[in-house]
Formats: sequence, structure tokens, C-alpha cells
Amino acid sequence: MGRLAYVNGRYLPHAHATVHIEDRGYQFADGVYEVVPVVDGVLIDEDQHLDRLGYSLAELRIDWPVRRAALKIILRELLVKNGLRRGIIYFQVTRGVAPRDHKFPGATKSALVVTTKRLNPPSAAMINDGVAVSTQPDIRWARRDIKSISLLPNILAKQAAVEAKAFEAWLVEADGTVTEGSSTNAWIVTKAGEVVTHARNTDILGGVTRLALLELVKSAGIRLVERSFTLAEAQAADEAFLTSSSAFVVPVTRIDGKAVGTGRPGPITQKLRELYVESVNRQIRRAS
Amino acid sequence: MGRLAYVNGRYLPHAHATVHIEDRGYQFADGVYEVVPVVDGVLIDEDQHLDRLGYSLAELRIDWPVRRAALKIILRELLVKNGLRRGIIYFQVTRGVAPRDHKFPGATKSALVVTTKRLNPPSAAMINDGVAVSTQPDIRWARRDIKSISLLPNILAKQAAVEAKAFEAWLVEADGTVTEGSSTNAWIVTKAGEVVTHARNTDILGGVTRLALLELVKSAGIRLVERSFTLAEAQAADEAFLTSSSAFVVPVTRIDGKAVGTGRPGPITQKLRELYVESVNRQIRRAS
Repeated sequence: MGRLAYVNGRYLPHAHATVHIEDRGYQFADGVYEVVPVVDGVLIDEDQHLDRLGYSLAELRIDWPVRRAALKIILRELLVKNGLRRGIIYFQVTRGVAPRDHKFPGATKSALVVTTKRLNPPSAAMINDGVAVSTQPDIRWARRDIKSISLLPNILAKQAAVEAKAFEAWLVEADGTVTEGSSTNAWIVTKAGEVVTHARNTDILGGVTRLALLELVKSAGIRLVERSFTLAEAQAADEAFLTSSSAFVVPVTRIDGKAVGTGRPGPITQKLRELYVESVNRQIRRAS
Repeated sequence: MGRLAYVNGRYLPHAHATVHIEDRGYQFADGVYEVVPVVDGVLIDEDQHLDRLGYSLAELRIDWPVRRAALKIILRELLVKNGLRRGIIYFQVTRGVAPRDHKFPGATKSALVVTTKRLNPPSAAMINDGVAVSTQPDIRWARRDIKSISLLPNILAKQAAVEAKAFEAWLVEADGTVTEGSSTNAWIVTKAGEVVTHARNTDILGGVTRLALLELVKSAGIRLVERSFTLAEAQAADEAFLTSSSAFVVPVTRIDGKAVGTGRPGPITQKLRELYVESVNRQIRRAS
């Protein structure tokens, strides 16, 4: 049997897993999602992802499709059925199926879809050499703190980055502020040795890896400031990096074609990646 | 046989019409749509809707799912199969099915879904008494000229309006500018007798009914200005109204609980509604 997907109570062959055309996720982007990394068969930072799912659902007044404990069982069941050891588990919750009408439907049951994907860790080249980012105007809506499936601006930015031969797009406000990447958080290390990333508010998504790393930075005694930084500041920084659930911590060595610092991954970035990988390994040991 | 829906080449019972969970419309809101009114079995302003579909698709670099002429045949076929005389035909095009990845997939075929819905014209009460609108901050992305399915901010605004016992939400920028409604265009008639509606740019959707009405206003010798207006200006106006493909021209008599002008539909609004209804009737006569 090939890969399965979970769709509203049933485990279906992935290739034949479908939702109704009037699922509000399909017509209105009326839903939210999470991507949880899986390493050695263990869900990394699972509770933090479920906390954020709860936040996104509450902000949009979408009901949990099943209770949190039941969702945890479904995630594990699908991992086992699909034999997933390394990769990601993706789940999305929408407001459910209802005749198309902008206002919230009356008594519709939320829809839940869960899929898995094998995915290798970032390549040695990415970690050893760093990646390039290109910049794009941040044209998204004002509630980026909600992890919604309303991702059209994000995919346009990512596509523009790919066409600029960059790994990721960093999104820049009209005033020059870098908010975050199209699917990652953005960080710099200033010449003064301070680690800087945008403060958590409605302008950015509160990344789970971002949050975990903030704690690790503090524990390591490295100076940390949560504030916005500009593109000019990033290009003049000693180091830059990005964080995401699937890639962890990745050095950024070029921004719009200009080298950051020496043009090589910096020591603080490398230290933080090691600290994060150690925290992942601790979770794996605890789970086994 | 009950109502049918067209899905990627097949006419399926509406209740069992589905799309794959990795259709990019479901995971990324990576698609566009149109709603065409149907009166006496005739598609109203069809070519203008297809022109706009072409614009939206081109802006997002999504291929037409079938040629324009073939789409027209599909629309007619579904109207006939469903026996639709009065209502709307809805169609949406997405970038198609591909393994989830932000960047555009390589060689994916666009997906096409078409549905119909019976819908009565606006009630006599709505036309004779007007409707109330409430206002909401315009928190949408910067490309409202693309008729995308990335509608989460729109549904949140509409829901807020419903909870405020209003028919529609008018969206207001930080500087007080009214852009448009959550699914309609916004208009006022000033004390000087000028009809005013937001100029067409990336801040609003270029409504098909809006465009048709602009021509009718000019032909009628009524003074017209395409420029933005503020909420304060709207509340001080003689008349206000909204336009949409399904409701045509509807008087707005209250904004955030304050009466507009006399609090009753104004003469210019009534005149413009008549002109638009006449243009619809001309299209029906031409088609039969």
C-alpha cells in the first residue's frame, strides 16, 4: 500500500484523498495549518505547534476538528502507517463544507487533513556555505500572526526568490523593515555581537523554531534583542540566518547578491545551529 | 438527478464533487474566481467576467484550464443541465495539483471547478429601503485587483458586518479612505451631485458591475469622479450605494448606524439602478 493521508476521519490512499469543492478552505482560504518536523520518527516541538494551532483557530473562531489529544493520536497513527522516520507531517484545519457565502456558516464541522512527506535535512552545502536570499516588498495582509492557508503572497514571493536563484525571499516593508521570510523567520548578528530578530506581533508569524531558539540564545549568554531591523542593517551585519521548522537554522550569506559579513557562515550562526540540533536530539532521546 | 458541478472535465453530482487535497487552491489559495449573474437563463456581462478572469490568471501566471471558447461552452452546458434560470454561476481556476511546495510547480495542469446556485434578486425591501453597512479596517494584501480566492480578510470583514446587523462591510484604510466592500464596490453621491467611486488601481477589485455602471453614469450625463473618498465624506454624502454582480445596484442608507442623507434611497441611486437593470434586460433580449 502506498502513502496514506488522513481526511476527516478516514485514512485514504494519498493519490485519491479529496475534499469537497465547497470546503471553505478551497473557496475562501478559510483555514489554518501546521508543519511539524519528524526526526527519527519523533515529532519535534509538537506541543508548541499544537499551541500555535490553537491560537490560529481561536483568532479565526474555527473549532478544533477533534480534541487535541485525539489529534496527537491521529498524527502518530499516520506516521506509523506511512513508516515516516525523517520528514514532515502537515495538517490543516478549515471551517468545513458549506454553501458558498462569505459569512461564517451556522453549524458546520471543521475539516481536518493530515499528510506526511519524506524530507532530508538541509544539505551539508547549505549549512557549510550558507544560502542566498533575495528581497521582495511585503504585500501581505495585516494578520501574519495567524498561520492561515491564505498564502498567495507568500508563494509569489518564494517564486520570485527562486527565479532570482535564491533559497528564500525576505519580505521588506515600505520603510525598509525586514519582517520575515516567505516561510521562515529572519535573523541577523550585528557588528556589536547582538542577535536580532523581529519582535513577535501581528507583523510576523511566531515561528516555533524562532521561539525555541530565543530560549537557547539566552541560555548561551549571547546578547539578544527582539526588534525590527532594516534591509540596509542586514546587509551591513556580521552574520545573518533564517529559521524554520523543516530546516532549523540555516546561514544566510548573500542578500540580493551582496555578501553578508565575510560571505561565509558566521560563528554565532554555527553555534546556534548546533544548540538547536542538540535540543532536537534531546527530544528524540526523551521520546525513546 | 440533483444539481451537477463541473470539475476538471467531468459533470459530477454536486454533493460528491471533490478536488485533491494537494490542489494548490486548498493549501495556498493559489487560484482565482468569477461569479457571473444569470437572469432568464442568460449570462450577464459574461465577456467582461472572462476578460477579468484572463487578467487575474495572467497576473498570477496561471494557465487557462481550457480555452476561453471552451469555458463558455462549459458554462452553458452546466446552466442547461441544472436548469438554472435565475442565480449565479461560479467558477474558480487554481494552479492545479502538485506536492506541497511554495514555489510554482513545473508542469501542472490548472484546475477548473464550476458550480451554479439559484438566487433571488435583491428583495423589494432592500431596494426600497436600502441597506446598512458597517466599517472595518482594510487589512487585506496589496493586490486587490486580482480576484483571488485568498479571501480570508474578506470573510472576516463580512462576518463582522453580519454581527453588526449590516448587509456589508466597507473597508477603510488607516488614512480614512473607503476602498470597497468585502464583496462589492462602494459609491457615494456628493452634495454637489457628483457620483464618486474609488479609481481603479491595485487597492480595489475592478468590479464588472462597477465598470458597466461607469459607462451608464456618463451616458446619462451625470457628473462622475473616480477618486477615493473618506468615511467622513461618505457619512456626509447625499446618497451612497454599492454594486455587485449578484445584487447590481443597492442603496446604502446607513453607515455605522448613521443615516446617509435623508436616510432613504436617493434619486440618483434609484436612477442608476434602473439604468443598470435596463442594460441587463437589453442583454437578455439580444440573447433570445
